[in-house]
Amino acid sequence: MHRYVIGFDFGTESVRALLVNVSDGTIARQSAHSYAHGVIDTRLPVAGDVTLPPDYALQHPIDWMNAMAIACRGAMRDAGANPEHVLGIGVDFTSCTMLPSLRDGTPLCLLPQHENTPLAWPRLWKHHGAKAETDRINAVARERNEKWLARYGGVIGLEWFFPKVLETLNHAPEAYAAAKVWLEAGDWLVWQLIDGPFPNCAAQNLVRSTCQAGYKAMWNARTGYPDSDYFAAVHPAMKNVVIEKMPGTLLPPGRRAGGLNPEMAARLGLSAGTAVSAAIIDAHAGVCGAGVATPATLVMVMGTSSCHMMLSETEKFADGVAGVVADGILPGYFGYETGQASVGDAFAWCAQTFKLSHSELNEAAMRLPPGSGGVLALDWLNGCRTPLMDGRLSGAFVGVTLGTQPAQIYRAMMEATAFGVRWIVDTLQNAGVPVQAFVASGGLPAKSSLLMQIYADVLGAEIRVAASDQSVALGAAILGALAAGPAATGHPGIEQAISAMAPQRDASVYRPQESAHRRYDALYSEYRTLAAPGSAILSVMRQLRGHV
Amino acid sequence: MHRYVIGFDFGTESVRALLVNVSDGTIARQSAHSYAHGVIDTRLPVAGDVTLPPDYALQHPIDWMNAMAIACRGAMRDAGANPEHVLGIGVDFTSCTMLPSLRDGTPLCLLPQHENTPLAWPRLWKHHGAKAETDRINAVARERNEKWLARYGGVIGLEWFFPKVLETLNHAPEAYAAAKVWLEAGDWLVWQLIDGPFPNCAAQNLVRSTCQAGYKAMWNARTGYPDSDYFAAVHPAMKNVVIEKMPGTLLPPGRRAGGLNPEMAARLGLSAGTAVSAAIIDAHAGVCGAGVATPATLVMVMGTSSCHMMLSETEKFADGVAGVVADGILPGYFGYETGQASVGDAFAWCAQTFKLSHSELNEAAMRLPPGSGGVLALDWLNGCRTPLMDGRLSGAFVGVTLGTQPAQIYRAMMEATAFGVRWIVDTLQNAGVPVQAFVASGGLPAKSSLLMQIYADVLGAEIRVAASDQSVALGAAILGALAAGPAATGHPGIEQAISAMAPQRDASVYRPQESAHRRYDALYSEYRTLAAPGSAILSVMRQLRGHV
Repeated sequence: MHRYVIGFDFGTESVRALLVNVSDGTIARQSAHSYAHGVIDTRLPVAGDVTLPPDYALQHPIDWMNAMAIACRGAMRDAGANPEHVLGIGVDFTSCTMLPSLRDGTPLCLLPQHENTPLAWPRLWKHHGAKAETDRINAVARERNEKWLARYGGVIGLEWFFPKVLETLNHAPEAYAAAKVWLEAGDWLVWQLIDGPFPNCAAQNLVRSTCQAGYKAMWNARTGYPDSDYFAAVHPAMKNVVIEKMPGTLLPPGRRAGGLNPEMAARLGLSAGTAVSAAIIDAHAGVCGAGVATPATLVMVMGTSSCHMMLSETEKFADGVAGVVADGILPGYFGYETGQASVGDAFAWCAQTFKLSHSELNEAAMRLPPGSGGVLALDWLNGCRTPLMDGRLSGAFVGVTLGTQPAQIYRAMMEATAFGVRWIVDTLQNAGVPVQAFVASGGLPAKSSLLMQIYADVLGAEIRVAASDQSVALGAAILGALAAGPAATGHPGIEQAISAMAPQRDASVYRPQESAHRRYDALYSEYRTLAAPGSAILSVMRQLRGHV
Repeated sequence: MHRYVIGFDFGTESVRALLVNVSDGTIARQSAHSYAHGVIDTRLPVAGDVTLPPDYALQHPIDWMNAMAIACRGAMRDAGANPEHVLGIGVDFTSCTMLPSLRDGTPLCLLPQHENTPLAWPRLWKHHGAKAETDRINAVARERNEKWLARYGGVIGLEWFFPKVLETLNHAPEAYAAAKVWLEAGDWLVWQLIDGPFPNCAAQNLVRSTCQAGYKAMWNARTGYPDSDYFAAVHPAMKNVVIEKMPGTLLPPGRRAGGLNPEMAARLGLSAGTAVSAAIIDAHAGVCGAGVATPATLVMVMGTSSCHMMLSETEKFADGVAGVVADGILPGYFGYETGQASVGDAFAWCAQTFKLSHSELNEAAMRLPPGSGGVLALDWLNGCRTPLMDGRLSGAFVGVTLGTQPAQIYRAMMEATAFGVRWIVDTLQNAGVPVQAFVASGGLPAKSSLLMQIYADVLGAEIRVAASDQSVALGAAILGALAAGPAATGHPGIEQAISAMAPQRDASVYRPQESAHRRYDALYSEYRTLAAPGSAILSVMRQLRGHV
């Protein structure tokens, strides 16, 4: 008899349901379904003609519910699985994707009086409408020397929670007033599973994830959210935003938020009462999905951008670390999140610009020596996250000659992203946070063995590639198993559950080559010279961005 | 009755004969003929199998003689011109293209005992075999605080005369010993016209151009060549190189070197006794060919690389000025030469790298605002000549984002070359050399009106495009007229001859646009920040070049 857990992986365009054997993590079935409205970035899906500004990126909450039900039923049917044999459910979601709702769980955008207001709709993580608000939130925090700022490397991001809340207050005050609950989409989804569907939800039953709250809403286990004086200084009307508009209990991912309610069980084709874990951010689910349950292993989730995460027993603050959150990834550990804003995207830019395929570029790049024949890049084509946290920075190429070939620029970009990781590691270590091992996951590692070898050579360390190509969804499923608990799953603890369900394999380990590593040591020092905070090139980049 | 002068323009691949009306400079006929052996860079054209190192670039002296005769006879025949009506001959030549000969004018490479020695052959300007010798020549000059070094912006170039002489001494001492005369190809050619052909020449009748001697062989009207102590310090065997191996009289371009000898007259289909001007470097001929006869007008000869020249009444020294030479361009003026090592070449690199045509890129670039939407380039894809004089520098692009289009990089490169000119102008003005007007010539101005408008906007000054697209050959022809003298040509002086034969037209004047100029003021300051001698990017470039 098979026993299962389900991971729901809510991405930007679709949701994937992963049905997983709870004993060994093998995938029984998976099924994905796209959101009917996808990313809403030109006009609202309403009768009236409401067009959107260029920075907007919204979603439709009904899309999430419908796509989840279709994907779940598809996976269950194809596997021939008995609903009784599904022990737990985990949910990961893009973040900060957030929305305003009523206290009964109804999204504000579904009310006729608010449906024509863009800011009443769920805002996707990549909605960039809150630039001025982000500046304000940072400026006030710096002025007031807010202690929590250090946990975020000194900078609150444009895509985070409170900038989006303040954006509503500034640009759609009637929607702000009508919003009784501000919450992350992942938390809203878990709320629907355990207490819904809306309008059946009750605000007191809402469970918020310490992951989203900690990384995107400046929440901390010891001190909570920023205090009301801070919010009042940002905007008087926001003074009591936490007390008045952010009800709910905070739980770490992997803790049981509640049991699946009967109506949602019927929609999904599952059993009522099935354990549901508190939500997690998609990238962060990749940590346990990559089989990492112990501190000091950097999990590099490498895709269009890269997110590097780590569990640690120590809480230290470093510049540009996107967040240090107790219980942020797994209960009992400080979760560190750092990032690079363009990785796969930067390689794609090269391919498109040079009109060559990735495989053509890869093959030519493989024949080049470390150092790409004299070209050095800065990989900030979408700004620099860790450690500089500056969206005004941009990409650069240095060392271009009349003989420079496209593959040199392509390889230099690969090397630059590797130098970026090394800088992140140095930043953590210098802050007193040890980094002892590396695991790569996400879509990129399978696409280019050259890239992984460069990373191993630049870091001077072994890199293990995560066995599953579904690390994120698998991570969500594992959280479902943790929520179901040892009695149900047979895994006595968190570490054992993760080791069993995401076993490490030796097959794809990249080992550093000594001569390449020595060469990269020298080049990394040139990279750091270019990227040094006082370097002329940085001030020029900021000037250039100011004039676009 | 038409009266003519002929300009012989010796390029890298071919020679052009331009038959010009002496009264108004209109072109009667022109005819070009390629050198049979072109650039000799793989193997010597001898019976033995002598292959050449990669840095070598040689030519065949007989090619010059044959191609000149064919081109000259072609132009004369097509024009139906009477040899008696040709009043003067001017010769421009690439430089420093040089060779060793006997005292009777015979090129060393034509002797059986030397024909298998590559360094006995004429070395083309772009022969790059003398790297170590250039370093030695510079190091000794700096050690000894040689005063003449200041006239060359502090650096002797790899392509110049004495590095090539020393190269022979180091690598082919028997050829050095056998060489009785070291001379520029342009001077050798004039020697053949007035006193040859070899072996009929006499060393005492050799006329050397003050242009080539001044710009490429550290000669100066007041102090002559570097003294024998300096040469002895470079290499003991070179101590008396000037006295022993460099006979001849020095004359400025435009002065009569002599009359055409009967045998050469017969070969060319011209009359014996026709006035022959002292030679000039090809780019420098472009100054009078562009109609410039007065000081403080910068003549921008824009091609694959750019050479910017100017007449001035003052002698001042500035960093990276390739040469300040009395009588270097026209008698009576100090000639300034400055340069940019890649201009058209850099645009071609973009076109090739992005797989787009120049016209596609130009059209898209025209739709972009000044500043190329946030991309700033450094235009040193072939090193930086003026003012940094550093071949280890390379190109760079800053401000690249995921949305950056090829046309932005193309336009940024155009703007960078314009900033490079502005830096040259600033360098001259700061040294006390006024620059008051701009004339553009060479192949590029006709190819892109966008480029010329950018130059006008960046410089904040009008730019007149030279009327003739044959400025260089026309300049050589004008020197032929100057050599023939007022009685023959009817032009009372140098200024009048130039104004009459290269009249300025208003048709193609580019005028600066105020708003673009203001924007470029700000961007130029960013360019200068990046390019500042102490900037991190420069030290990184030098490191990168060292490892290629």
